Amino acid sequence: MLTLHDFLSSGNGYKCRLLLSQLALPFRRVELDIMSGATRTDAYLAKNPNGRVPALELADGTVLAESNAILFFLAEGTPFLPEGRLERAQVLQWLFFEQYSHEPFIAVARFILHLLPADHPRRAELPRLERGGLAALAVMERHLAGRSFFVADRYSIADIALYAYTHVAGEGGFDLTPFPAVRAWLDRVADQPRHIPITQG
Amino acid sequence: MLTLHDFLSSGNGYKCRLLLSQLALPFRRVELDIMSGATRTDAYLAKNPNGRVPALELADGTVLAESNAILFFLAEGTPFLPEGRLERAQVLQWLFFEQYSHEPFIAVARFILHLLPADHPRRAELPRLERGGLAALAVMERHLAGRSFFVADRYSIADIALYAYTHVAGEGGFDLTPFPAVRAWLDRVADQPRHIPITQG
Repeated sequence: MLTLHDFLSSGNGYKCRLLLSQLALPFRRVELDIMSGATRTDAYLAKNPNGRVPALELADGTVLAESNAILFFLAEGTPFLPEGRLERAQVLQWLFFEQYSHEPFIAVARFILHLLPADHPRRAELPRLERGGLAALAVMERHLAGRSFFVADRYSIADIALYAYTHVAGEGGFDLTPFPAVRAWLDRVADQPRHIPITQG
Repeated sequence: MLTLHDFLSSGNGYKCRLLLSQLALPFRRVELDIMSGATRTDAYLAKNPNGRVPALELADGTVLAESNAILFFLAEGTPFLPEGRLERAQVLQWLFFEQYSHEPFIAVARFILHLLPADHPRRAELPRLERGGLAALAVMERHLAGRSFFVADRYSIADIALYAYTHVAGEGGFDLTPFPAVRAWLDRVADQPRHIPITQG
């Protein structure tokens, strides 16, 4: 049995839950309240020394960290990851884009607005996060114009990874109105079989 | 012939140059001065809409962005990427760690100290970057204690990706003295056949 160390509000955790649902893989979910330090205990750091969620624990106790590495691991050999060498690398290109140019802006803005108190000093970061998030959305909009999905015109883990925080970008203060190709793509992703919402554990 | 769109001081570019050297793959290098906007021209944005280096252009004109996706693409089927599904995912775990928890601190501190003028206002970011970089180095130190390399006890693109900015962390103000396992690993990486320095184009 797979165990997912997770936090329900986390888009990074949601990526894994969504793919596990779409692969119809049973798993046990352990909820860790990141707001109260549950990922910084000695017991958890022994599993994932980087102290973050999600982490996937295999039946033999091996722990795999980093949401997008978990996606790749679960998707290998399934329709959610193309088989061609170039297409696989293109999927990875978008996974790295997501973690470097998208998540640090859109997910962090959402964290500040959605999970921290309204008077928290981290609100000072919001203008910088808005600029970075809008730049990422513009790159996505340009790529999706005339395409159905990010790579090889079919639904893959590249779409799952980018959907996770884009579909809740509004909770980070982002207005998706100027990004029609992104909005149409969000609808296509949500229409995939065995889709689940981020609120489903 | 492969073309690498690159910037010599970039550790992300260096990752690709180092692997290309170790694979003995010939390539043409195009130097783009990121300090004067060469990655934000219309011509370059047509190749890589995210406007960053490195990007690898294949003989047919296909452009692959994101340094770690380029590493994975070049390494598939070679000794630089393990074949087992779990080991490949563990390599990816460290590649994502590098781009999320290491590069945004160590590479950015180096950029500010090494490439911006001494009186630049971005120096205000240095205390935050130092904290993040030291946390990443501590995770690496803990993992490398008792190991020769990051994954499967052999040299792989996980080592190449993490070596790129760790070996020049001093240029970002980081003192590696408290990280003996990291320092011994840096020496092992530098001893690999066909190793090249970051200054070699």
